[in-house]
Amino acid sequence: MRARPRGRRPRSTEHMAAPPRLALAHVRAAEGRLRHRLPRTPLLTSRSLSRLAGRRLLFKCELFQRTGSFKIRGALNAVRSLVEESERAGGALPRAVVTHSSGNHGQALACAAQAEGIPAYIVVPRTAPHCKQAAIRSYGATLVPCEPSDKSRAETAARVVQETGGVMVHPNQELAVMAGQGTIALEVLEQAPEVNAVVVPVGGGGMIAGIAVAIKALRPDVKVFAAEPRNVDDCYQSKVRGELTPNLHPLDTIADAVKTSIGPNTWPIIRDLVDDVLTVSEEEIKQATRLVWERMKLLIEPTAGVGVAAVLSEQFQAVPRDVENVCIVLCGGNVDLSSLTWLTDLPGKAE
Amino acid sequence: MRARPRGRRPRSTEHMAAPPRLALAHVRAAEGRLRHRLPRTPLLTSRSLSRLAGRRLLFKCELFQRTGSFKIRGALNAVRSLVEESERAGGALPRAVVTHSSGNHGQALACAAQAEGIPAYIVVPRTAPHCKQAAIRSYGATLVPCEPSDKSRAETAARVVQETGGVMVHPNQELAVMAGQGTIALEVLEQAPEVNAVVVPVGGGGMIAGIAVAIKALRPDVKVFAAEPRNVDDCYQSKVRGELTPNLHPLDTIADAVKTSIGPNTWPIIRDLVDDVLTVSEEEIKQATRLVWERMKLLIEPTAGVGVAAVLSEQFQAVPRDVENVCIVLCGGNVDLSSLTWLTDLPGKAE
Ligand SMILES: Cc1ncc(COP(=O)(O)O)c(C=O)c1O
Ligand SMILES: Cc1ncc(COP(=O)(O)O)c(C=O)c1O
Repeated sequence: MRARPRGRRPRSTEHMAAPPRLALAHVRAAEGRLRHRLPRTPLLTSRSLSRLAGRRLLFKCELFQRTGSFKIRGALNAVRSLVEESERAGGALPRAVVTHSSGNHGQALACAAQAEGIPAYIVVPRTAPHCKQAAIRSYGATLVPCEPSDKSRAETAARVVQETGGVMVHPNQELAVMAGQGTIALEVLEQAPEVNAVVVPVGGGGMIAGIAVAIKALRPDVKVFAAEPRNVDDCYQSKVRGELTPNLHPLDTIADAVKTSIGPNTWPIIRDLVDDVLTVSEEEIKQATRLVWERMKLLIEPTAGVGVAAVLSEQFQAVPRDVENVCIVLCGGNVDLSSLTWLTDLPGKAE
Repeated sequence: MRARPRGRRPRSTEHMAAPPRLALAHVRAAEGRLRHRLPRTPLLTSRSLSRLAGRRLLFKCELFQRTGSFKIRGALNAVRSLVEESERAGGALPRAVVTHSSGNHGQALACAAQAEGIPAYIVVPRTAPHCKQAAIRSYGATLVPCEPSDKSRAETAARVVQETGGVMVHPNQELAVMAGQGTIALEVLEQAPEVNAVVVPVGGGGMIAGIAVAIKALRPDVKVFAAEPRNVDDCYQSKVRGELTPNLHPLDTIADAVKTSIGPNTWPIIRDLVDDVLTVSEEEIKQATRLVWERMKLLIEPTAGVGVAAVLSEQFQAVPRDVENVCIVLCGGNVDLSSLTWLTDLPGKAE
């Protein structure tokens, strides 16, 4: 039922350090929690992109999901799980939830906490764009400024956890978060049972971990492909080497939401269940993003363009022809509309 | 069953000039022709826009329609009708179809003709944007350049009709075109029987004529509202005066697809069946367009923003509260991505 691990066998120390591993049951439980709380996103097709790819493409529209990305699935599942735990223990609601992400997870956690009436503290670098800070604030969360360094983020978050008695919800290494993201796969299998492959952009790996666990448990014949910018190819490097290889000095990428590296909890799942990792250039990401804007009229963020670029890349031609129905997760649509210079500067428009 | 005409009673000369009037049967016939030839577009909702409007909004996503706007419905219905006529007469296919529109109708007619294997000649002012000319050419149509004046357009089109033995397909005054656009209404009534009103941007009036005829025949309780830029408010002026009042010197508008005036065939339908006309400022159109981009992640063209702006306007507050479920036709998504300066220049972002 599992895909064969690629590359070197895992070292035993990794197994020792392994956390409780994500299973289909966790994703099913998340599905139950989210069912009446979040809308089901549509699966759209596109004649013109399918023609370009030479396969039938299906687009899972997570850019329409509440807060503009799939991240609300994981965040709300985590918050609801905390609430249910408190209820079982007969205690009060959790005091607060905390995270350090100025991006989609920060917004999602703020939204989830607001829905459950729990305070949220989001640690944000002073340098984060004003519009992202405003979005988080619009969900009633408290912004806690920090310096723009990993150290300051982690320290500030730890301090906030201590001071508030809150719970840290990690954007991708938290099991409840991965389980929530996995509900994307359950929907896709229902909406398009004919699917032969799913293509998923990878940052910390929470989304692909949840999706891979659900897919490989229910439909091991369906391929799971990771898509990654070549500038931050830690997932690719990890698979090639057979060991977790974080990106210590990531280059810049327009797909800012996947700049982060996969981690200790997502790596074993990626190692065992992901069929292949496709990497794409910045130029390919921009062209693919623009193509989706122009042809599909969907305002995806460049990170979602990573999956589209992967399927349109030459690499993908090597995928067997019987992988005909390919679902790409359009993971988000939170574009900063005031920073579209990359678009107008693009040499030679998409096609 | 008909809405009461507003303003002065029509003059009898208008009735004398009246063409065969559009009826539900024409729209039903169009539905039959288009059913297996065009995709049905989804009807999406938006929590955040509904909250802003204080009503439940439903968005008919014609920006996803083939060629990026609803125009393919009318164009394909017209072309198919010509083909069926030839077949009935036992003759050959029509020699060619001709129109003068560098915009969405030009693209749509080119696409429809290509699907039926008929040559299309599209008369286009030399000054039309390169990207629009390229889009028309991509459907295999022949571009016929003319000078950028109404006179040159009409003369050139007439000459092409004569030389090719082709048939002119008018973008909005042609009955088969109106009937095709009316299929939007049949879909909306099926997708959301709870709908209380439909809001439709108006240029030449082909779309609202088709929609109004279908809606008022099937569900006279459902309101039909026209939405129009204040800078080109000929539909509004016509309704106020009770007589067709074309815009002789239209101001400029960002909603370029509705700069044209309603005409002799659409006016009587609008006069009798449209409940009210809402006009909006350029600023309102831009803000509404940006709002749909940011909140719904849908890349509508500003013309589609006209309907959204109307529903968010103060004027719309006067519409009774029991008009709860309001469907806005997001009529198109053909935005020129290289000309987004209006967006980045917008003072104070949408909310
Ligand atoms: C839009 C979008 N896509 C993809 C990702 C990557 O998800 P993960 O970190 O779970 O791999 C993120 C993470 O922030 C995101 O916001
Ligand atoms: C996107 C779009 N919306 C609305 C209209 C107006 O349609 P009508 O001229 O039938 O009123 C047009 C016409 O070109 C259009 O292209």
